[in-house]
Amino acid sequence: MNQPPASASASCPALPSANDALARVRIVLSRTSHPGNIGAAARAMKTMGLSRLTLVNPKAFPHPEAVARAVGADDILAAAKVCASLDEALAGSVFAIAVSARQRNLGPPPMPARAGAAEVLALAAGGDVALVFGNETAGLSNDEVQRCQRTIFIPANPDYTSLNLGSAVQLLCYELRLAAFGGSPPVPSKAVPFVSPRATNDDVERFYAHLQRVMIATEFLDPQQPKRLLPKLRRLFARAELERDEINILRGILDAVEKKIV
Amino acid sequence: MNQPPASASASCPALPSANDALARVRIVLSRTSHPGNIGAAARAMKTMGLSRLTLVNPKAFPHPEAVARAVGADDILAAAKVCASLDEALAGSVFAIAVSARQRNLGPPPMPARAGAAEVLALAAGGDVALVFGNETAGLSNDEVQRCQRTIFIPANPDYTSLNLGSAVQLLCYELRLAAFGGSPPVPSKAVPFVSPRATNDDVERFYAHLQRVMIATEFLDPQQPKRLLPKLRRLFARAELERDEINILRGILDAVEKKIV
Repeated sequence: MNQPPASASASCPALPSANDALARVRIVLSRTSHPGNIGAAARAMKTMGLSRLTLVNPKAFPHPEAVARAVGADDILAAAKVCASLDEALAGSVFAIAVSARQRNLGPPPMPARAGAAEVLALAAGGDVALVFGNETAGLSNDEVQRCQRTIFIPANPDYTSLNLGSAVQLLCYELRLAAFGGSPPVPSKAVPFVSPRATNDDVERFYAHLQRVMIATEFLDPQQPKRLLPKLRRLFARAELERDEINILRGILDAVEKKIV
Repeated sequence: MNQPPASASASCPALPSANDALARVRIVLSRTSHPGNIGAAARAMKTMGLSRLTLVNPKAFPHPEAVARAVGADDILAAAKVCASLDEALAGSVFAIAVSARQRNLGPPPMPARAGAAEVLALAAGGDVALVFGNETAGLSNDEVQRCQRTIFIPANPDYTSLNLGSAVQLLCYELRLAAFGGSPPVPSKAVPFVSPRATNDDVERFYAHLQRVMIATEFLDPQQPKRLLPKLRRLFARAELERDEINILRGILDAVEKKIV
């Protein structure tokens, strides 16, 4: 689904749901040289719940390498819009943001990715917002940047800012997803983590007593000179917040030791 | 430089600098199938200021495709350590964190990437920390996850969690960089953005008066029925925070208009 549902924009334009807001973000790739990067961008978008890909004068598209790199995101490639100009790609959007590592002499003030993503999501309340990525080698031209109202940069290592195009799309889409869901997107819960009930205090104390007994029996602990051994062990196991099952295992180990010592 | 300077760890173990902390993070790739992904990971690391790459049983390494995808990060490939087991890769580290999309029945509780990155950086105060990434198709085995003390997941679209390995490394390294620099890493400032001094209030008021005069002269504004035209224009230009140069340009436009009207 490439368009937010009509009801959402009609009845509640100021507060689209997180998924509706993400559906209003267009990822625009301008003059991409390598079709593999278009596939990588599609995959990156889908992993973060974005779906609207626009290509301005791609060197080769459609292309089997794009499909190969998209893995399961070929639906995004199939729905991608191919345009002959950036103006055509931006038509109907309310805001356009250039993604650029370079600071420009002219042009709007640059924002780091995290703050920029929050701004994109806020703007999406008013309509479609476009994020524009340039060519792999040359980046965005000044003319392209000036067609955008703002600039976003990824705060990379100043000595090596050369992000792969797919990686840049991945980072921005990730920040958009986190911004859309207020920092905590829903998580798939395929497996219920195994936890047994927490051990009671009595269980834990019986374990400590058992451990102490075994340490004395094995002559590891001298009850006349205990030093700080037990407090240190208590500290360790307190941090672990022992479960009932774990107490059973630990005491089983101690039992087994006791059976072997003479 | 792969090791933090001795002075940093000796004199100030609790507070390494941001770059020293990043230098203590090992990126461990286990059983990687495609050498191109190793190159992509090296590039992703370098863009975020990480340098220590460890490979456990890579299918093909060294490999020309790794070098090709690393672009300018071949120094990281050249310094990469190749190990025969995960234990060997983790030797000497104080903490290991598994990066995994899957929830496990057993194993430590998973953390989302952002919180996890903050934890990794905090742990790096105590020594080397390893971030462990599994095979492209199979991910990490349960055995590998259980050799780690914690698990990090990337909060992806629950319907499509299939991140490319290079993208996953890129995201985690990005979060590590932001965590290391408290959210605002230093930015390269190659170009000083063009700004002329802010316009004074008088300049701006003279511009409004000029604009009003031209709008009346062109019969766009009826002074008997001004409606809310001027307040709306004031609102627009106030938001733009006009500079002196811009005032000159705008008034030049108005001058030119005045010369043409009869």
